Amino acid sequence: MLSKNQIKYINSLQQKKFRQEHQSFIVEGAKSVLELIQSDFEVELLFVTDDFYKENESLLEKQPIRPEIVTQAELERVGSFSSNNAALATVKTKANKEIFAQENEYVLVLDDIRDPGNLGTIIRVADWYGIKKIVCSKETVDFYSPKVISSTMGSFTRVAIYYTDLVTFFNANKLKVYGTFLDSANVHQTQFAEAGYIVIGNEANGISEGVERLVTDKITIPRFGAAESLNAGIATAVICDNLRRRK
Amino acid sequence: MLSKNQIKYINSLQQKKFRQEHQSFIVEGAKSVLELIQSDFEVELLFVTDDFYKENESLLEKQPIRPEIVTQAELERVGSFSSNNAALATVKTKANKEIFAQENEYVLVLDDIRDPGNLGTIIRVADWYGIKKIVCSKETVDFYSPKVISSTMGSFTRVAIYYTDLVTFFNANKLKVYGTFLDSANVHQTQFAEAGYIVIGNEANGISEGVERLVTDKITIPRFGAAESLNAGIATAVICDNLRRRK
Repeated sequence: MLSKNQIKYINSLQQKKFRQEHQSFIVEGAKSVLELIQSDFEVELLFVTDDFYKENESLLEKQPIRPEIVTQAELERVGSFSSNNAALATVKTKANKEIFAQENEYVLVLDDIRDPGNLGTIIRVADWYGIKKIVCSKETVDFYSPKVISSTMGSFTRVAIYYTDLVTFFNANKLKVYGTFLDSANVHQTQFAEAGYIVIGNEANGISEGVERLVTDKITIPRFGAAESLNAGIATAVICDNLRRRK
Repeated sequence: MLSKNQIKYINSLQQKKFRQEHQSFIVEGAKSVLELIQSDFEVELLFVTDDFYKENESLLEKQPIRPEIVTQAELERVGSFSSNNAALATVKTKANKEIFAQENEYVLVLDDIRDPGNLGTIIRVADWYGIKKIVCSKETVDFYSPKVISSTMGSFTRVAIYYTDLVTFFNANKLKVYGTFLDSANVHQTQFAEAGYIVIGNEANGISEGVERLVTDKITIPRFGAAESLNAGIATAVICDNLRRRK
């Protein structure tokens, strides 16, 4: 059974200021917790239902942390999921370590992505397309928010995130910086360099002026109909698919 | 000011059974209402704030329906948006009219898309890629749900929807039917026919067995990393981008 203090602690991690204070965050649901316990993240507390424990016993027995058995109702009471019949963990956040694109590597750069679902989707897309690093502007939504973590569907374990001031970040950069704009070069014809950065802009305002000046190659997803724009996660996927195809 | 009966009526349209009973649905927010009043949908009631009215006076004066001026608080009280400083309309639904792919035309087919945000995103993606028709299985979420309509960002006015039994629908079909599966033909190399259907499967279970038997060409979005799957809206966008590019 969860103690009063545990309940209070886990609930507090729904808020960014307590996640920062405790340097911990919540991971919920079967898929995410299974990916978590096979990753290099440090699990702090681990609560599982009896069913989940039995289904994953061999994996759970290898954990440095002993899982506590709780009920589904307890998981739903402390977590953000309306339904969770599996597991919940609190996990140590990682240090905000500097990231750069290496030779032959592409890194995503997010210029003020505000919606947690969009950030989660972008991380999942990055993981699908083999992109292992994402640089975020300081105003981008917190990677460790429960909504972000759950929308990554486990991909948060495989993609490193670094929050920084993008203008300062790009000042030292010598690689290509691709950014999506309306009426620029058709991404279907873009010959991408061996390595570089792909900037995704804010949901409402696109790429900010300061960052736009540092974009070396403006690209456009061609439109064949009448919608005014594409969602940030969708745009990321289409750009990555074009980046990864053989041209 | 909104009357008690109007409030009750609009609130009822949040639920599918009342939308079906009244053959009406809700459209909310500046962008969606502006697209609506320039479309062929029949507006029933139109509520706007004073500011929205002044900004769009010439367009609103052309409407067969006289807009009623209300406050932002009233719009938020009756609608599903937590913030709406612009407009809300109730609109007549369209008949469930049969849809087929014509020569040179592609039609999307949704096999049990359950999440309203996913359906909305798919409609917006279809509209971006010039796809004007979507066939939905009967279990696909209701097109007229407020969450679907708002996630289309106005594209609901340009994409026709038809709900039917997919197996019966495809029995009479002679065109190509493309469906996404794991470990099938790489969509980067697919030479799409002049016309056909693209099936998008359910979020958790993919394409159903009955429909799978009627798919003529199985395709796969190639993966370069480790994520297990892509979201349904993302997969739709990547397939459409591959369909529309010159190969």
